[in-house]
Amino acid sequence: MTDIPTGSQLLPPSRQVEMWFEFGSNYSYLSVMRIDGLAARAGVRVLWRPFLLGPIFKSFGWESSPFVLQAAKGAYVWKDMQRQCQKYGLEWKRPSQFPRRTLLPMRVALLGASRPWIGDFCRQVMSQNFVADRDIDTPESVAEILTALALPAQEIIREAEAEPNKLRLREQTETAAHRGVFGAPTFFVREEIFWGNDRLEDAIEFAAGD
Amino acid sequence: MTDIPTGSQLLPPSRQVEMWFEFGSNYSYLSVMRIDGLAARAGVRVLWRPFLLGPIFKSFGWESSPFVLQAAKGAYVWKDMQRQCQKYGLEWKRPSQFPRRTLLPMRVALLGASRPWIGDFCRQVMSQNFVADRDIDTPESVAEILTALALPAQEIIREAEAEPNKLRLREQTETAAHRGVFGAPTFFVREEIFWGNDRLEDAIEFAAGD
Repeated sequence: MTDIPTGSQLLPPSRQVEMWFEFGSNYSYLSVMRIDGLAARAGVRVLWRPFLLGPIFKSFGWESSPFVLQAAKGAYVWKDMQRQCQKYGLEWKRPSQFPRRTLLPMRVALLGASRPWIGDFCRQVMSQNFVADRDIDTPESVAEILTALALPAQEIIREAEAEPNKLRLREQTETAAHRGVFGAPTFFVREEIFWGNDRLEDAIEFAAGD
Repeated sequence: MTDIPTGSQLLPPSRQVEMWFEFGSNYSYLSVMRIDGLAARAGVRVLWRPFLLGPIFKSFGWESSPFVLQAAKGAYVWKDMQRQCQKYGLEWKRPSQFPRRTLLPMRVALLGASRPWIGDFCRQVMSQNFVADRDIDTPESVAEILTALALPAQEIIREAEAEPNKLRLREQTETAAHRGVFGAPTFFVREEIFWGNDRLEDAIEFAAGD
């Protein structure tokens, strides 16, 4: 899969960070909202890598998020999210459904991963899930976001739902598993792996330092 | 269980942080080595809360650490530990056995939790596990550490192994579960819970801010 550079063509390949993320993942929310600002300040390019967390969790024998399966961890996570959002100055509302279905917006994110609108699109989807507490896996909600970004919503959704793109998302998810991704967000700087929003700064610093 | 203040009697009860930890836990290693310095600078008192992680994990149906049970997470954790120790300026050697048995030093830590030597003792045990790569659950290794601290090793070990103290460690572990502890280290500032070495600074700041 090749990436079409979007405005950062002059950066060497080492100065880039891959963000593997899922719209259903609350800690991905924190990173999706923060990464562009942090990366721009460090002169690091962001490569957006949407993948599906569900099949990864299923491969561990988990039928849902560990935040659902483990009661104590689940109770903790919502307190932690509230404090983290306060720390970062991000809006936050605990979603009434967790984890939400994400298939359509994930497909759109994969299709747009190297296009100039990817950051805006992802932040909007995340805000729908974790601030507005609205479903994100409907053609209506995705079209609303794309249209607000002055994009041809129906055309993009059609292409996102076409067989080649659906297949690519499955392949991308297999690639995630193959590279050792076990949760989201996960960052790669070349083959160096960083797990979790708590490691975003470290990953960017690592990319910037070479 | 009452705590005998050890030199910080003038601090109000709000300016204290409980650290729930396990000698077998590698992320507890990071916090055990760091907490006294951070807390002293913030004027916060540390309450040492040793507990057994094994029974907590068993209550989730896990027969070992998730770092053992999940191959991808396990592979990640050792890379992360190397980087984290470098960041904090801590020595590190990946233990050849993980997780190690910890029952005797945990019992001694519980016995000494409010005594002046608790910090030194815990740092020494952690260094044996995560720097020297030596077994820590033997009378010899525990006695060696206590003796080096100019403490009556045999007397302390005898008291630690006596029935009342063994029972207290089981009760302490039940208290951990009851309060929502699901991993180590976990910090409490009053009833506010913070999980993981990544939250140590937040917990201390929270304790200092009130």
